[in-house]
Amino acid sequence: MKRSALEAQIRAKKSVLCVGLDTDLEKIPAHLLELEDPIFEFNKAIIDATHRYAVAYKPNLAFYEAEGLKGWQSLVRTINYLNDTYPECFSIADAKRGDIGNTSARYAKAFFEVLPFHALTIAPYMGVDSVKPFLAYPDKWIILLALTSNPGAADFQFLQVDEQAQLFETVLEKSQKWATDEELMFVVGATKAAFLERVRKIAPNHFLLVPGVGAQGGSVAEVMKYGMGSESAALLINSSRGIIYASQGLDFAKKAAVAAKDLQKDMQGFIL
Amino acid sequence: MKRSALEAQIRAKKSVLCVGLDTDLEKIPAHLLELEDPIFEFNKAIIDATHRYAVAYKPNLAFYEAEGLKGWQSLVRTINYLNDTYPECFSIADAKRGDIGNTSARYAKAFFEVLPFHALTIAPYMGVDSVKPFLAYPDKWIILLALTSNPGAADFQFLQVDEQAQLFETVLEKSQKWATDEELMFVVGATKAAFLERVRKIAPNHFLLVPGVGAQGGSVAEVMKYGMGSESAALLINSSRGIIYASQGLDFAKKAAVAAKDLQKDMQGFIL
Repeated sequence: MKRSALEAQIRAKKSVLCVGLDTDLEKIPAHLLELEDPIFEFNKAIIDATHRYAVAYKPNLAFYEAEGLKGWQSLVRTINYLNDTYPECFSIADAKRGDIGNTSARYAKAFFEVLPFHALTIAPYMGVDSVKPFLAYPDKWIILLALTSNPGAADFQFLQVDEQAQLFETVLEKSQKWATDEELMFVVGATKAAFLERVRKIAPNHFLLVPGVGAQGGSVAEVMKYGMGSESAALLINSSRGIIYASQGLDFAKKAAVAAKDLQKDMQGFIL
Repeated sequence: MKRSALEAQIRAKKSVLCVGLDTDLEKIPAHLLELEDPIFEFNKAIIDATHRYAVAYKPNLAFYEAEGLKGWQSLVRTINYLNDTYPECFSIADAKRGDIGNTSARYAKAFFEVLPFHALTIAPYMGVDSVKPFLAYPDKWIILLALTSNPGAADFQFLQVDEQAQLFETVLEKSQKWATDEELMFVVGATKAAFLERVRKIAPNHFLLVPGVGAQGGSVAEVMKYGMGSESAALLINSSRGIIYASQGLDFAKKAAVAAKDLQKDMQGFIL
C-alpha cells in the first residue's frame, strides 16, 4: 500500500487506530470454540465490527505459531479475508523478524508473498543487510523496532552510545539511510510526551506504530498531540486486549466496536 | 536436554558440528521434487547421512515459513523424525524471536511444546522480559544473538556503549544475570581469534553457537583453538550450505556425509 493511500484512509475514517489481533484460544468467547476455526471466526467478527473505526490490523505471530499448523491456517484465512473484504485496511504482521541477507529474503517472501501483508515488524540488531531484502518489494513496509514499551527496553535501547544519543536514537537515525519514509516506519512504544518529542526530532515525518495505549494505560490524546508527523497524522496507535477482549460473551464483537469507536473519538479532533 | 548430555554426545562423537537445515526447494536435488514432501525427505536423508558426525541440527525457520503451511508441515515432520530417531542429537530452531513477556511466552510454547526443539535463537533488543519466559522450560535453551557474522553487525553490535565495551559485549555481560550457562548460549559469528578471545573473556564457559565456517570461509581450527570453553568444548560450530548442498545430484546425502566428516576431523583433535 502506498503512503498516500494509507493517509487517505486515515483522513476518511478520522482514525489512526490499529487493532492488534493477539487472538488467544483461552480468552475468546466459549461459544466460538465449537466452530472449525475459532481463531479465524473471532478475527473475522472483530474485523467486521471495527473496520469503520480502524485503519490497520496487526496479527501478533506468536499467538498463531503457538497453535502450530492450525494457527498458521487461521492466519492465512485472516489475512486473506481482510484483504478481500476491506482492501483499504493496512495489515501488519507483527513478527519481529530479522536475519542475515539471504534469510531475510525468505522472511520477505513469507510475509509479503505467501502471506500478503502490507508490513512486517523487524528487529534492528543485525543491521543493514537484515533490513534491505524487505525493500525489494514495492509498496510493502518494514516497521523497525526503535523504542519498545516493555521494562526490558531499558537493558539495551537506552544505552548511551555516544554523547548525544541512546541506542534507540541511533537506530532511528541510521536506518533512515537505508529506506525512505514511504517504506520504513518505526515501532515507538512511547506514550509520554518527552520521548515522543525526542523521536520526532530525529524522524519528523515517518509513520510511527505506537503500542501501549488502552489496556496498557497510555493516553491517546498525549500520543496524538506529541507524536503527529510534520506533514500528516503519521501514526498508527495500536490497541489489542482493550478492544478484542472488551467482552468475552456473545456480545464480544459489539463491545469491541464500542471500544474501537471510543478510541477513534479520542483521535478524530487531531486529524484534519 | 541437559548440558551434561550435550557434552557427553560431543565427547562420544568427538564433534561440535551443527548442521544447518536451510532447506530450499530451488537447491535440493530435482529427483526429490516429485515426492509428497520434498523438504522433509531431503532433511531426513541429510540427518540419516550425517548424524554420526554431527551433534546438532538447526532448521532456519525462514526457509520453512517461505513455503507457507507446507513448509510448517515439513518442519513438524523434521523435528519429530530427529527426536524419535536420534534422541541424542540437539535441535535448534533458528528463529531469532523476541517480544514482550506475554508474547515471548507464546513463542516458547510454539518452539518448546508444539515444536519440541531443545533450543531457540533469540534477538536481544527488547531486553530481559523478552528472554525470561523461555527459561520457564526446564532443559530447554535460549541462544541469544551477541555477535553476528554479517556485514550489518557493524551497524549496532559494534557501537561503543561505554569506555570498556561494545554493544555485543554488553549483551554478553548483562544477559548472564538472567540465566545460567545450563540454559543460555550465545550466537557468536566470529571465526577470528581476536573476537573469540574477547568473547571468552566475558563468557568463559557458556556454549557458543558459531556460524560462518565452511561455505562462508571461516576456519574450524581457529574457532576450536580460541573458542573452547574453560571447562569443556562448549561450542556448536554450524555449517549449512557446505554440507547440505555438497552435491545436488543423486549422491547428495553421501556427499553431505563426506563434508560433515571432513569438518568433524578438523574438530576431533581438540576434544578430549
